[in-house]
Amino acid sequence: MSYRLIYWPGLPGRGEFARLVLEESGAAYEDTAQGDRQDALEAMKSALSGAAGGLPALAPPVLQHDALFIAQSGNICEYVAARHGLAPADEGQRALARQLQATVADLVSETHDTHHPVAIGKYYEDQLAEALEASAHFREVRLPKFLGYFERVLEQSGGEWLLGAFSYPDLALFQVVEGLKYAFPIGTGRTLEALPLLTAHAARVAARPRIAAYLASARRQTFNANGIFRAYPELDG
Amino acid sequence: MSYRLIYWPGLPGRGEFARLVLEESGAAYEDTAQGDRQDALEAMKSALSGAAGGLPALAPPVLQHDALFIAQSGNICEYVAARHGLAPADEGQRALARQLQATVADLVSETHDTHHPVAIGKYYEDQLAEALEASAHFREVRLPKFLGYFERVLEQSGGEWLLGAFSYPDLALFQVVEGLKYAFPIGTGRTLEALPLLTAHAARVAARPRIAAYLASARRQTFNANGIFRAYPELDG
Repeated sequence: MSYRLIYWPGLPGRGEFARLVLEESGAAYEDTAQGDRQDALEAMKSALSGAAGGLPALAPPVLQHDALFIAQSGNICEYVAARHGLAPADEGQRALARQLQATVADLVSETHDTHHPVAIGKYYEDQLAEALEASAHFREVRLPKFLGYFERVLEQSGGEWLLGAFSYPDLALFQVVEGLKYAFPIGTGRTLEALPLLTAHAARVAARPRIAAYLASARRQTFNANGIFRAYPELDG
Repeated sequence: MSYRLIYWPGLPGRGEFARLVLEESGAAYEDTAQGDRQDALEAMKSALSGAAGGLPALAPPVLQHDALFIAQSGNICEYVAARHGLAPADEGQRALARQLQATVADLVSETHDTHHPVAIGKYYEDQLAEALEASAHFREVRLPKFLGYFERVLEQSGGEWLLGAFSYPDLALFQVVEGLKYAFPIGTGRTLEALPLLTAHAARVAARPRIAAYLASARRQTFNANGIFRAYPELDG
């Protein structure tokens, strides 16, 4: 059996990190987001509870591969990557790839929290004052810290790919930079001005043949107001 | 060469997750937190920048193993565990272990954010009102969601260990429950009343011979006001 990605329909979210690795792998996969909405929600409920046959998961995305159901976006990326030559073979290098992927995941979480700093389960409108303050701190301190970090990694690795040779965290870095450009166009644009390797890296990922084909397809979902990356102009200073 | 754990001196923090796996492995390791404070800070600076020879890291802990420097707490845990028989050998089970470890890491981050909801770089006192609201939401919604999830995993796996057989995420789950008991004694106590498997699991981990010896040693640091888990009574309702 091929892969089946189980995720919320209607938003790229954390599912998109897994999708990029699946696309780059060239493997066949079913994406519940491309099918009937109700079916997707049912599949998600069943996968999260463990009723579908696997270990329960706290949150989507979940990747089904035969009888195996695995969750946590970065984990899905590594699992698929390792099976298709997109992860380093050496155990030490593999750990570095995992480190980079986890650091992207931290940045993703911090980005999400800019619009929901107080309570993930409450409305944005009810935490707007706090979101304004959190976003200012994010744009001024956290965003330059994270993106500057990846610039240094690229610099040390020769400038082309994070670990010298292409590996799956390169896709994650591309996606988070895309999301940040959408959510904070001014703040991200200003930060990237000083980071030429990172800017070139995003273009390099987008030009990979399978990624370019995917980005041009209807399978690539646009960012919107329901995901991690939301374009609230008031939060962009 | 043996392992060297490089972390902030004076707080258990995210370094403690790595420490528990190192202790359970029985391997010899140097812990910078046990040595001179200034030396520890210098080692950290050097490891984070990449000046010590490895890839730069965004944040500690960093594990040095010969010429390899790896960061991200869960990643260090997996790396050490895999080398000492504390991670599943099967690739699918390995992915499930990684999923559980990443879910603990998410809970750790959300716990940290209860006392720093607006800005990680600003004082607790300057975001107290937001911390009160964030903590109420955490205690009432997020904490039961996460801990209830681990109870269900234990239930499905037979009740003893998360994946049936002992593996490194069992240590991480123990540590986060310990931290939550310290930070939110009332809220955590109330939540745990309905979770008998999780309660028994924490005791089972603490009774493992190497863990018991470690917990009774001077190497085990107490929680305090500088880490992820802070006992601010006002946040416990």
